[in-house]
Amino acid sequence: MKTEVAIGIDVGGTNTDFAIVDRDGNCLSRDSIRTDRHNEVVLFLDELAEKLRSQIHKLDKRFEVKGIGVGAPNGNYFKGTIEFAPNLKWKGTIHFADMLAKRMNLPTVLTNDANAAAIGEMIYGAAKGMKDFIVITLGTGLGSGIVVNGEILYGHDGFAGELGHTIVYPEGRLCGCGKKGCLETYASATGIVRTVVEMLQQSGEPSILRNIEKGKLNSKDIFLAAQKGDKIALDAFEFTGKILGMKLSDAVAFSSPEAIILFGGLALAGDLIFVSTKKYMEHYMLPIYRNKVKLLPSLLNNENAAVLGAAALVWKHLKKG
Amino acid sequence: MKTEVAIGIDVGGTNTDFAIVDRDGNCLSRDSIRTDRHNEVVLFLDELAEKLRSQIHKLDKRFEVKGIGVGAPNGNYFKGTIEFAPNLKWKGTIHFADMLAKRMNLPTVLTNDANAAAIGEMIYGAAKGMKDFIVITLGTGLGSGIVVNGEILYGHDGFAGELGHTIVYPEGRLCGCGKKGCLETYASATGIVRTVVEMLQQSGEPSILRNIEKGKLNSKDIFLAAQKGDKIALDAFEFTGKILGMKLSDAVAFSSPEAIILFGGLALAGDLIFVSTKKYMEHYMLPIYRNKVKLLPSLLNNENAAVLGAAALVWKHLKKG
Repeated sequence: MKTEVAIGIDVGGTNTDFAIVDRDGNCLSRDSIRTDRHNEVVLFLDELAEKLRSQIHKLDKRFEVKGIGVGAPNGNYFKGTIEFAPNLKWKGTIHFADMLAKRMNLPTVLTNDANAAAIGEMIYGAAKGMKDFIVITLGTGLGSGIVVNGEILYGHDGFAGELGHTIVYPEGRLCGCGKKGCLETYASATGIVRTVVEMLQQSGEPSILRNIEKGKLNSKDIFLAAQKGDKIALDAFEFTGKILGMKLSDAVAFSSPEAIILFGGLALAGDLIFVSTKKYMEHYMLPIYRNKVKLLPSLLNNENAAVLGAAALVWKHLKKG
Repeated sequence: MKTEVAIGIDVGGTNTDFAIVDRDGNCLSRDSIRTDRHNEVVLFLDELAEKLRSQIHKLDKRFEVKGIGVGAPNGNYFKGTIEFAPNLKWKGTIHFADMLAKRMNLPTVLTNDANAAAIGEMIYGAAKGMKDFIVITLGTGLGSGIVVNGEILYGHDGFAGELGHTIVYPEGRLCGCGKKGCLETYASATGIVRTVVEMLQQSGEPSILRNIEKGKLNSKDIFLAAQKGDKIALDAFEFTGKILGMKLSDAVAFSSPEAIILFGGLALAGDLIFVSTKKYMEHYMLPIYRNKVKLLPSLLNNENAAVLGAAALVWKHLKKG
């Protein structure tokens, strides 16, 4: 009998990563192409399909590719579409899954990147065996994948789970979505940079972060400064955890999950982000939920997480029949 | 063949209402007892069971009682328990469904009152045919029943759907739950009274509400004043709708429902509450959701709604097998 494998594809604004993955989460091969090289999605898909065929061709004959899973910004699971993704060159509604399935002659499932991460955690990661949990991806923005009773919460139109755009302060920071005060303008890699910039302006506190050229500061600088005990950096993590913890308490009141899993760059800061987030999450939570909800780090290898999540979509889909 | 009927029971802080209801939502008989008369739940259940038996006894022989549905504060569907309900005399965890089932020898299902309302809307009311919607009950407090893919969202521990205790202002009004700034301290019958009291203190605006004795003002007074064009009353409805609309936009970002249904006393204020809530819900919503989510009034007869919802639990339960 052949060993079943799946293709996982992570469509990002700059690069598109893809890998052939087995049921245990091992990447048998891996490659990537530039997403932003083609203004036409058709040309992009042609290049992608060619690369995938070449990967499949090189695969040992004992493997059988069962399907393709795609994680993409503004991905719609119901329709297999990418819709008005602000960070991609292809505008409007792209019938990505159908177009790729035709080229590859393989069943193709698509969802947004945070949902893919959630399925990845369920199949390969920190949420194994869980039926109710939330994955928060802390990258450039803040994404969320919500699992209810073992299934991704897609909602009426397939776009459920946009916790990054819930409101923290009605007249707060301007968000890329056009609204003000969205959670992701505070709790994300870019959010913590904005926090530090504000703190440096508003306080006279000495900080090694003052030495970094304006506009060049990034979340890693803040992490390194915090590790050295820099007060502004530490305060910025505390503030980020406070906002995130407060909004996670809202999420708990919504779906009462067994665990919330933090994933992505900012989550790698470990205790710096986990301690304050947990503290404020408990503080703002309704008593009936307190000390019941685990706050966990992702167990997906960060480098492969997105493609693993995308590949996991295939196993989840096959299970449904 | 006999006609199937269900018993619906609504356990409130003061009264417990119950009715025998058919599959079309007709109440065949109806009665109530005092909830607060018995410090011991055992004595309360004895009285309730006696009344129910007498109702069943009077029923025409062509009817067959299929089960009992109970809506109760802090009701847990998974365990059939009422847990630490702040407005009931019975403290701790009460195994209400089991105790009643034993006395009545009928399958008994229990959930919290807002979930019962949501099931009522799904079976008999404004959510017929919908699979993804949220019911918000605007009574003394704010309750919520969230339906995802045709099922109540219970979460890991059965306590999901407490939107009344999501945070509006971290240092805002003190809530009965012990936290500060919970949604229900603003958007509820008591919330709008607090808003008016604050507005009367902070502004010199003339208002007929100033004539009402301190501590006696209620939400109906505010409704009547608003109907007469009283500016304070109108401003209070606008403010309430703003807060509610903002938090409903968060709820949409969570579960992307087809509709949100407003139920209970404050919802009866009609346009006074619906217009501003809808306006701010759209304003604070992520563009991908805008003009897609219906904001609807409950279609359950308000007087019978709670017992209808409780009875509907039985039909929902039987369907699951």
